[in-house]
Amino acid sequence: MSLDPVLAHIDSDLSAATERLMELLRIPSISTDPAYKGDCQTAADWLVADLNSIGIKAEKRVTPGHPMVVGHVEGEGPHLLFYGHYDVQPVDPLNLWDRDPFDPAIEDTAKGKVIRGRGTADDKGQLMTFVEACRAWKKVNGTLPCKITFFFEGEEESGSPSLVPFMKDHAEELKADIALICDTGLFGEETPAIVTTLRGMMSDEITITGPTRDLHSGMYGGIAMNPIRVLSKVLAALHDDEGRITVPDFYEGVPEIAPEIMAQWEALGFDETAFLGEVGLSKPAGEQDRSGLEMIWSRPTCEVNGIWGGYTGTGFKTVLPSEAHAKISFRLVGQQDPHKIRENFRKFVSDLLPEDVKVTFKTHGASFASQMETSDPIFEKARLALSDEWPREAAYVGSGGSIPIAGHFKKILDMDSMLIGFGKDDDGLHSPNEKYDLNSFHSGIRSWARVLDALTR
Amino acid sequence: MSLDPVLAHIDSDLSAATERLMELLRIPSISTDPAYKGDCQTAADWLVADLNSIGIKAEKRVTPGHPMVVGHVEGEGPHLLFYGHYDVQPVDPLNLWDRDPFDPAIEDTAKGKVIRGRGTADDKGQLMTFVEACRAWKKVNGTLPCKITFFFEGEEESGSPSLVPFMKDHAEELKADIALICDTGLFGEETPAIVTTLRGMMSDEITITGPTRDLHSGMYGGIAMNPIRVLSKVLAALHDDEGRITVPDFYEGVPEIAPEIMAQWEALGFDETAFLGEVGLSKPAGEQDRSGLEMIWSRPTCEVNGIWGGYTGTGFKTVLPSEAHAKISFRLVGQQDPHKIRENFRKFVSDLLPEDVKVTFKTHGASFASQMETSDPIFEKARLALSDEWPREAAYVGSGGSIPIAGHFKKILDMDSMLIGFGKDDDGLHSPNEKYDLNSFHSGIRSWARVLDALTR
Repeated sequence: MSLDPVLAHIDSDLSAATERLMELLRIPSISTDPAYKGDCQTAADWLVADLNSIGIKAEKRVTPGHPMVVGHVEGEGPHLLFYGHYDVQPVDPLNLWDRDPFDPAIEDTAKGKVIRGRGTADDKGQLMTFVEACRAWKKVNGTLPCKITFFFEGEEESGSPSLVPFMKDHAEELKADIALICDTGLFGEETPAIVTTLRGMMSDEITITGPTRDLHSGMYGGIAMNPIRVLSKVLAALHDDEGRITVPDFYEGVPEIAPEIMAQWEALGFDETAFLGEVGLSKPAGEQDRSGLEMIWSRPTCEVNGIWGGYTGTGFKTVLPSEAHAKISFRLVGQQDPHKIRENFRKFVSDLLPEDVKVTFKTHGASFASQMETSDPIFEKARLALSDEWPREAAYVGSGGSIPIAGHFKKILDMDSMLIGFGKDDDGLHSPNEKYDLNSFHSGIRSWARVLDALTR
Repeated sequence: MSLDPVLAHIDSDLSAATERLMELLRIPSISTDPAYKGDCQTAADWLVADLNSIGIKAEKRVTPGHPMVVGHVEGEGPHLLFYGHYDVQPVDPLNLWDRDPFDPAIEDTAKGKVIRGRGTADDKGQLMTFVEACRAWKKVNGTLPCKITFFFEGEEESGSPSLVPFMKDHAEELKADIALICDTGLFGEETPAIVTTLRGMMSDEITITGPTRDLHSGMYGGIAMNPIRVLSKVLAALHDDEGRITVPDFYEGVPEIAPEIMAQWEALGFDETAFLGEVGLSKPAGEQDRSGLEMIWSRPTCEVNGIWGGYTGTGFKTVLPSEAHAKISFRLVGQQDPHKIRENFRKFVSDLLPEDVKVTFKTHGASFASQMETSDPIFEKARLALSDEWPREAAYVGSGGSIPIAGHFKKILDMDSMLIGFGKDDDGLHSPNEKYDLNSFHSGIRSWARVLDALTR
């Protein structure tokens, strides 16, 4: 089996591959919003049909939430599992999109052609790079190069509630030699990257209740405690003046990065001024005694992802509201325990409340950080294959994101993961006008063909 | 002209009067929301027609915003102006209403019959107490007891942008010997009250912008400044631990209440535990060295009336938002200058921002506090007339609310105001399930008949 004809076929088939991706992108599979439940089913059906069309036996599997898609193809050599997710983020604020998020198109930009639309980069476009590499390989060689399991979920953007139970129930079916995950990015514009550390996450929602009903601030203002005032005090207390997070014992289990890794990171020439400048900022907001790269890769964080309370419409309403709310997430590193941190966070909040103000918490996600086994020689094989495709040599990098699946593969299936992806910093993940460079898609497909070749040669 | 037959007619006509009020309540005249512009016109038309039906020459007057309604009836004796507003507050959160806010009904409650619906107490029900008193007087006596000008506005709940220009343009037409304003409440359940101090108000909206677009907190969390974090710091800094407001020079012009007034207030037996307990609270939230009555009547306040930013929908979205917003109002007393306070507040906010975070402000209302001229003997006449109607003697009281109209009458028309109203603490002004006691409506109508009699005898 030979690589060059596969790469040539990928090149000649690019426009058809792009059209297939467009079909998937048009399905608004927003997992966090119950209104799109049917669309998540449709996206899963689409993937089953597409895998079947390549000769992969695939099925939609029922869960209490959105379905899984599982496919198998037999073969010799290593057994690979490929993971991706077909669900996408919500699209609000919709008025900031320049086009319908679910009517994707190829656009010309100053930096080249991009595919614009929700899910292009996170994660439908990335997922399809692997599927298209398999399609080309099959077309050229009549068979795939090894045994491959395909595993797609539809709840990645909403805390993956069904994932762990499903993996436990299907451990034997899903266990492979290594998992390939395509949900990360390049380093900068041209450096392919294998992510070797991933942050974990703890997310929680708090509701602070003051008076039992909304009040008129003319009648009660001054004497009745305003829950927004209390919430502000709580949120303001989460960071000290040096950017450190103040939840007790929060930094327990946070490791210092080994000097040799730190030296490799420094060699990458991360330009924090340019990184922040691209989004209109200039001053790193995290722990003031840490570098920008540490802030985004190796240090834990605390962000308020949403806040609301009182009157938020047009005009003015002098209400003193009964409730105020916030969604808060912590990115975790090293051995930080999300469950212990949730407990400490909740106690921290409760301790700050005036005696007659109440708080309730709603549990969202919890996942540990991960560290990959780069000593396995297949990592170096993959790194060299990626270096062949892209202008610069591939790097082992950290990631600020939380891809809990890698931790679950390790913990439940005792399976290591290799995270390879082709996103760029300006893709606008989770934001309006999300895009995926057409070159990320094209070279991404070629990259997977090269990796499949390298791992099975 | 005799009072008793008028009171008897009011009693026998109560059910028809209630039905008239219901008609007005069914018109959703929410002034702050442009979607209800046509309904504000409809409410004004309804009032014009109703005044005309009593023989009062009334007209709708165009303004750049919602129309004014002005009516005149000639007569001997003092010239009175009656002011009310036909616009109402928004109704959200709609899910907390037990019925359609604009489908009013009489409901039986443990405390007696109430009229339930938006605007029942603020201010349509109150406004109609005076109109119904006039209707009864006219019916019984064939004529009203004195010269009366009726002046209804439709922008009271949205900062009254057209009011001052309209009053300046029509000063001669509107000037009377005294203004009667029905937009306040009883003291407790049974004590009629004439409000002699009103708080002023300064309201502002702030938008804090961090990054130029919404970001993925996995990629940017930790390094990019989150505007919700900044907003929380700003709002948390507005009060110190003792409940004092920290905006520089904020307390300039705040007077101490005269000992004799304070003694009278103490005699009212305000039960702050019961007042707070009714809304599920126990601890006064204002300046800790002040009494509860001072907090709501004579001390200035700062309340956040609305806050929003990031993802506020179902589920979770790990966004690091570009913007965070808050609506903030200050209730003012004595000689506090709303314009100076706006300036100091904005500087206070700006000074707290990190260098690369921006803030923009949107101006809402500004009004000075008012102090009524109770030495005018008509105040004592009215107080005695009210005492005749209700179980307890009428009191001169303070008010936490801001009724800027009284200040405008004084400043523009050099006309004093007398504030008499029949609302109760549990009416739920600006809240879901707003109500007006049927007895407030009935005895309110009777009260105005008595006041008209007392002022013109």
